[in-house]
Amino acid sequence: MFEANVYANRRRVLLERMAAMTQEGARGIAVFLGNVDAAMNYRGNDYKFRQDSNFLYYWGIDEPCFAAVLDLDSADECLYGNDVDIDDIIWMGPQPSVASKGGLIGCAVTKPLAEFAAAVADAVAKGRPVHYLPPARYYNQMTLAELTGASSAAVRKTAPMASENGKHASEELVKAVVSMRLIKEQCEIDEIDKACDIGYLMHTEARRGCKPGVLEQHIVGRMEGVTYSYGWGPSFTTILSQNGETLHNHSHHQIITPGRLLVVDAGAESNTHYASDFTRTYPCSGKFTTKQREIYDIVEQANELAFSLTKPGTSYWEVHCATVRYMLEQLKALDFVRGDVDEMTACGISGLFMPHGLGHNMGMDVHDMEDLGENYVGYGDERQRSPLLGMGNLRMARDLKPGHVISDEPGIYFIPALIEQWKREGTDKGFVNYAKLEEYYDFGGIRLEDDVLVTEDGARRLGSQRLPIKSSDIEEIMANE
Amino acid sequence: MFEANVYANRRRVLLERMAAMTQEGARGIAVFLGNVDAAMNYRGNDYKFRQDSNFLYYWGIDEPCFAAVLDLDSADECLYGNDVDIDDIIWMGPQPSVASKGGLIGCAVTKPLAEFAAAVADAVAKGRPVHYLPPARYYNQMTLAELTGASSAAVRKTAPMASENGKHASEELVKAVVSMRLIKEQCEIDEIDKACDIGYLMHTEARRGCKPGVLEQHIVGRMEGVTYSYGWGPSFTTILSQNGETLHNHSHHQIITPGRLLVVDAGAESNTHYASDFTRTYPCSGKFTTKQREIYDIVEQANELAFSLTKPGTSYWEVHCATVRYMLEQLKALDFVRGDVDEMTACGISGLFMPHGLGHNMGMDVHDMEDLGENYVGYGDERQRSPLLGMGNLRMARDLKPGHVISDEPGIYFIPALIEQWKREGTDKGFVNYAKLEEYYDFGGIRLEDDVLVTEDGARRLGSQRLPIKSSDIEEIMANE
Repeated sequence: MFEANVYANRRRVLLERMAAMTQEGARGIAVFLGNVDAAMNYRGNDYKFRQDSNFLYYWGIDEPCFAAVLDLDSADECLYGNDVDIDDIIWMGPQPSVASKGGLIGCAVTKPLAEFAAAVADAVAKGRPVHYLPPARYYNQMTLAELTGASSAAVRKTAPMASENGKHASEELVKAVVSMRLIKEQCEIDEIDKACDIGYLMHTEARRGCKPGVLEQHIVGRMEGVTYSYGWGPSFTTILSQNGETLHNHSHHQIITPGRLLVVDAGAESNTHYASDFTRTYPCSGKFTTKQREIYDIVEQANELAFSLTKPGTSYWEVHCATVRYMLEQLKALDFVRGDVDEMTACGISGLFMPHGLGHNMGMDVHDMEDLGENYVGYGDERQRSPLLGMGNLRMARDLKPGHVISDEPGIYFIPALIEQWKREGTDKGFVNYAKLEEYYDFGGIRLEDDVLVTEDGARRLGSQRLPIKSSDIEEIMANE
Repeated sequence: MFEANVYANRRRVLLERMAAMTQEGARGIAVFLGNVDAAMNYRGNDYKFRQDSNFLYYWGIDEPCFAAVLDLDSADECLYGNDVDIDDIIWMGPQPSVASKGGLIGCAVTKPLAEFAAAVADAVAKGRPVHYLPPARYYNQMTLAELTGASSAAVRKTAPMASENGKHASEELVKAVVSMRLIKEQCEIDEIDKACDIGYLMHTEARRGCKPGVLEQHIVGRMEGVTYSYGWGPSFTTILSQNGETLHNHSHHQIITPGRLLVVDAGAESNTHYASDFTRTYPCSGKFTTKQREIYDIVEQANELAFSLTKPGTSYWEVHCATVRYMLEQLKALDFVRGDVDEMTACGISGLFMPHGLGHNMGMDVHDMEDLGENYVGYGDERQRSPLLGMGNLRMARDLKPGHVISDEPGIYFIPALIEQWKREGTDKGFVNYAKLEEYYDFGGIRLEDDVLVTEDGARRLGSQRLPIKSSDIEEIMANE
């Protein structure tokens, strides 16, 4: 938890941004729902508690069963939560009062949770706008539907508040929140640096574990153990696979096998809930084959190029385009594709090799604020999403500004099912050399990812040390550990 | 996953048990909902997938977005799920077809998930009974409310089917499922043994980590890492605390401090989703003080006594009573309580020292089937729950039968807030020596727990080795590691 004034200041700025988008005297209220516990296999046997990120950002309380209301007209604010009774003390221990928790986040007014519904009902009854964010969790979806009388499907949709008061998530509130959370404060950057340091330890376990004969699951357990020892846990389900051509492969039942490549895409969440997200690809035998090294070095250089281009004055859209163009040039040199590189870039040929975007915003969520709507977060009013495979999956396309934190994660994959589909449907417009590709059906994939902060005059890779990435460094380190 | 005939056989037995409780020709259908993914911080960034335990038991499929219907009249059965498309293959890899998955669980008929709602709607329209279990997850609660037209609160309540068809969870189905899952099959016992072996490794990490100066969280991370390396993960949120007097303490921010006691209550879930659950209590300095050893040895002997009494021909209610009576005798010898032990047992004085029950059923859920209703699971029609603190918290009171798997977990705690409340309200009826108790306000608590299988002629502690438990053994081992 940060100092109280961090949260109080954020709520003050939010009031200002909402004031700019709403009409004086008829602004209404902004409603924030914290999370309740989420059942793992039964209610009471819950997953490790994770607070709603927006609630954490504005209200800081990292416990279940809290809610809050910010009055956009009067600037009154209230935190709702329950004090504990003797039964809670027996099972959960003595707890500070809700009032004292309010003090920790600069909120002077606190009330029992039971009064929250009445406060919202009062605003609804008076016809005041009720702004809320699209709920991530099903419980909050049910709660918002009950509070507003909208359907559970409707409260997940975002629309301008004027369109139907309270029946949909508020576009104004989404835009105001996105505008704030996109630009990281120094205290947040410090926490992301910490999350990256845990990610470094985690990936070091992975590299050391990558030895022929080891079960993938054993490595994953050691990596995730690190995240629980030093932080909150993994920031997303660990991807560790010798089938790296499957982008989000979550099975870990294979044995590390010489000659294959191991893609490890994993990150940690700090105790304060900021995420890291790194990818490295290791040769299972400790040494790359010539085929592997050729592709690896293209991806490594693409990662380097993207980083060098990341700075204010350009957009991540442009950085993505320049990076995939570079990869196509190199793939052309190896005879995977033939023809004019500009033309094939325009046709989206790179999507066959990299069907995902160069990167995404990061923060409290590893894909920051994804639940508020990827276009609000990564595009805003600046540009329209491309319909092409790969380019169209780019999650962050905005003009870069100091304080943006983004991933830099180019990759090259050989996905037999996708290649066969393109061949069948002629999607490649004649640019692709399928005969060459056939030799790569058992290759897998390579992805290399760092976390980057946009600074005043460029960019900085986050974390106190960069994970080894050059193919020669990887081989040397793996030979010695 | 077990062999196909395990699941087919379970469904056959379920049909028989349901037939015994429902009327021929008007039995209706039994509906089973698998789980969908559960959002951690946003939808798409999910907690590690955990299938619904009842779905796993009867339908075996360990993946999101499946459902099933068993026709109790015709014995027809159908598994509902979706085959993957090219987009799924890019992100998740090639997958076997739903039809082939049906084959793995002996279910010949499979259909797309979209047809599931229509199948239920058809039964509702025809006025056929629609049996379902109370849903653990909010998503399934919403789904059942939509399918049946009942409120989301109503579908969580269990009632006899005749009372209001489809508007509540089915008591008949709950009883039939409980009767089956309570008695473990050999293939299940084998899996619980495996889960116990992972629990053994996990607790070994804990004991080795228990050294002055170490942060509790670092130990927890290493323990949980073991569960991910060798199984699915922790079977419940790890309890590791020097404030053992708080029964379910989940904060781990303290430093291991000489002179204190460390309570570690933790278990693992096997890859097939069977749970272990052990508790040990360690002296942080490696040696117990005299005060600590006196209490520790009472709890250790109580654990031993409970195990020796656990066999067919008695009930766990009786084992609980005999165990707490033994502890009261010993506490009387130490002058914590004064008077007639039988009288104080009848008054529930033991609840001050052990405000929980001796144990609970275990299986795929660490508190097995808790969501089906603790009284259905642990009491049935055999006896009524006690209103007393401690005794009233006993989760398993049934007559013991071969195949029952239960925890044996006596404890003694000194909970200042509870002691003060009893003193204030005279709850102790004069039996308690508060002057003596005051010297123990900083003591903490001790709990010692094993997992036990009831056999034909007695009981067996599960797992291939028992975690060290004797105070002298603990001290010797801690001195050498």
